[in-house]
Amino acid sequence: MLNFDFYSPTYFAFGRDTESRVGELTKRFGGTKALVHYGQGSVIRSGLLDKVRNSLTEAGIEFVELGGVVPNPRATLVYEGIELCRREKVDFVLGIGGGSSVDSAKAIAIGVPYEGDFWKFYCGQDQPKTALPIGSIVTLAATGTEGSNSSVISNDLMGNLKCGVNSDLIRPTFSILNPELTYTVPDYHTSCGATDILSHIIERYFTNTEEVELTDLMSEAVFTRVMSAAKEALRNPEDYEARADLLWGGTLAHNNILGVGREQDWSSHRLEHALSSEFDVAHGAGLAVIVPNFMLYTINQCPARFARFAVKMFGLSATGKSDLELGKEGIKAFRAFLDEIKMPKTLADLGISREHIPRLQKAVVPNNGDLVGYFQPLDKDDVIKIFELSL
Amino acid sequence: MLNFDFYSPTYFAFGRDTESRVGELTKRFGGTKALVHYGQGSVIRSGLLDKVRNSLTEAGIEFVELGGVVPNPRATLVYEGIELCRREKVDFVLGIGGGSSVDSAKAIAIGVPYEGDFWKFYCGQDQPKTALPIGSIVTLAATGTEGSNSSVISNDLMGNLKCGVNSDLIRPTFSILNPELTYTVPDYHTSCGATDILSHIIERYFTNTEEVELTDLMSEAVFTRVMSAAKEALRNPEDYEARADLLWGGTLAHNNILGVGREQDWSSHRLEHALSSEFDVAHGAGLAVIVPNFMLYTINQCPARFARFAVKMFGLSATGKSDLELGKEGIKAFRAFLDEIKMPKTLADLGISREHIPRLQKAVVPNNGDLVGYFQPLDKDDVIKIFELSL
Repeated sequence: MLNFDFYSPTYFAFGRDTESRVGELTKRFGGTKALVHYGQGSVIRSGLLDKVRNSLTEAGIEFVELGGVVPNPRATLVYEGIELCRREKVDFVLGIGGGSSVDSAKAIAIGVPYEGDFWKFYCGQDQPKTALPIGSIVTLAATGTEGSNSSVISNDLMGNLKCGVNSDLIRPTFSILNPELTYTVPDYHTSCGATDILSHIIERYFTNTEEVELTDLMSEAVFTRVMSAAKEALRNPEDYEARADLLWGGTLAHNNILGVGREQDWSSHRLEHALSSEFDVAHGAGLAVIVPNFMLYTINQCPARFARFAVKMFGLSATGKSDLELGKEGIKAFRAFLDEIKMPKTLADLGISREHIPRLQKAVVPNNGDLVGYFQPLDKDDVIKIFELSL
Repeated sequence: MLNFDFYSPTYFAFGRDTESRVGELTKRFGGTKALVHYGQGSVIRSGLLDKVRNSLTEAGIEFVELGGVVPNPRATLVYEGIELCRREKVDFVLGIGGGSSVDSAKAIAIGVPYEGDFWKFYCGQDQPKTALPIGSIVTLAATGTEGSNSSVISNDLMGNLKCGVNSDLIRPTFSILNPELTYTVPDYHTSCGATDILSHIIERYFTNTEEVELTDLMSEAVFTRVMSAAKEALRNPEDYEARADLLWGGTLAHNNILGVGREQDWSSHRLEHALSSEFDVAHGAGLAVIVPNFMLYTINQCPARFARFAVKMFGLSATGKSDLELGKEGIKAFRAFLDEIKMPKTLADLGISREHIPRLQKAVVPNNGDLVGYFQPLDKDDVIKIFELSL
């Protein structure tokens, strides 16, 4: 087990009707005037926005609103939010909706007190030193941004360049998670979300660190339950327990409790970000194509680890098989699960073909000699080969 | 799954040599003058205290010291610590050692800014509203106090009455966990610690809440690993991975990540507190006697849950058995594990006999009509019967 720091200070309020506590929680954590930041129609149609307004009003919290966040959230709206918060002297930023609204809220929260351009944090030119506190109400089980230290923004002023920032300052002060708010998520996005959650576990699971038994067992517990819960939620979108375990599983998959003590490898996410920034595909759908092929490409790095994956995640029998054979069966079983929840299999399914690969490769490794990831550091040629495997 | 709030804001620094970061972390979290609060000889003999002094000095943190914490920590020393902190204008309390030092540090941290007698928090007459920040360096895998909201103190001015307080204000601001610091723990206390950890999971696991699949799977992951790690640490006290999983498992077992979504039942702890306050036995040793008998006594409350315990924790086969039969086999297997790690089996092993039961019962349920616990609320007669089963 490697040395680690673990820090997940977010206050989570989980369960039915918890969205009505947003005013109380904003007040408890020192907010007096909030930005209510949200996406498009669904938050309004479902009545959630009205509930938020009522709760804030009851708690005596003033607020201003900024809607219009889109999937793969855009820098332009972040700039607008920063200006609005400064003008209105907002001291608390609330992101309401899917992961995009929260990621956008995080960008605003670090942008408001910063003298420079917030994008500097995303392109690695500076690190945030202070931030407004953030609250979230999440309506999709997927990104885990409600408990994570990360935010990803697409810069529409720079050809949709998709970049991320990691900082403990953007872990939400509180997050509200009501499984019932996810009942109306369309099947396709339930599946995309589950794929994103499983990928967050996989990116942490494949490691060269030898001994991480406790973290492994916990990862396997969450992974297997997220798979079964996804299938249950697709069968019955109003299955509370399935929706609850998906939602909480999504949080646990990305607040790093399942990553401690290990090296981690985020190559699949890096490769997928090229897909979603260049072609605006849903993040989970892109991962469904990339992750199994990344696994196939890197299996020789540590076949024993893939063999464990096969046994623990899918209950496959090890009898008479080499680690490599068993590991490949595990990847096949994972792919079969993705088929079952109707996730795309190939780049072609996403409307991407061989001719696009140079552009995708350039988005992942812009310069010769660049390397991505730790488990198996990938150079330009490796990245091209994984995209080719995914065709 | 029941609605829940989950809050574990502690910053954990885990791994080799992390104790040398105590100065840096105290400074990062705003401390300028610390109380270094510790136990008896081992912290000095091991050189840990010197490392702490050096680290604080290097970081420019002033400090005063107060040693002498004993197992089942006493109120008298808490009063002394409170006075010292006020006199010296201390703004950060560091608990160094086993759970007792940290629990005592917690009591001091809520006592310093309080006008009244700190004991009011422990006997339920008041709730803390503010506290000094707390840091911990833990040298024993057991109580989980490094991440928990609880502290237990024995009032030596009131016949060693043992009482606890729960408040988010006493979750440590940071905790430092170095598995190597636990290498020298004697076998008996390694076993007591493991028993305490497992009991923290059991108290949360037996529930009338029907659906808590994700929390169950995670609980089972930690429980089974803590059992195997305990055996490995007893075989080889310097097995880093075993010590690491015990230590981190102890934290996870009691920061409530394994309790969310369920009702919880803390009867076994209540019964054991009578043993340790009346007879000063080691907490884990007392639990080893009480918990299996509590389980036997309450099995009819929910046999299916005990059957799951048997299958998931001990891999027992369900074939051809009723839930009740299987559940009893599971309790037997747990008892066999406790035998293997050389934990006491009966009250007699602790020097306690039938004549003491009325006194013990009175410590648990002082008044007729009092009830303890949720899973199966226990009255006076139930408590007597569980002590009798334990003779």
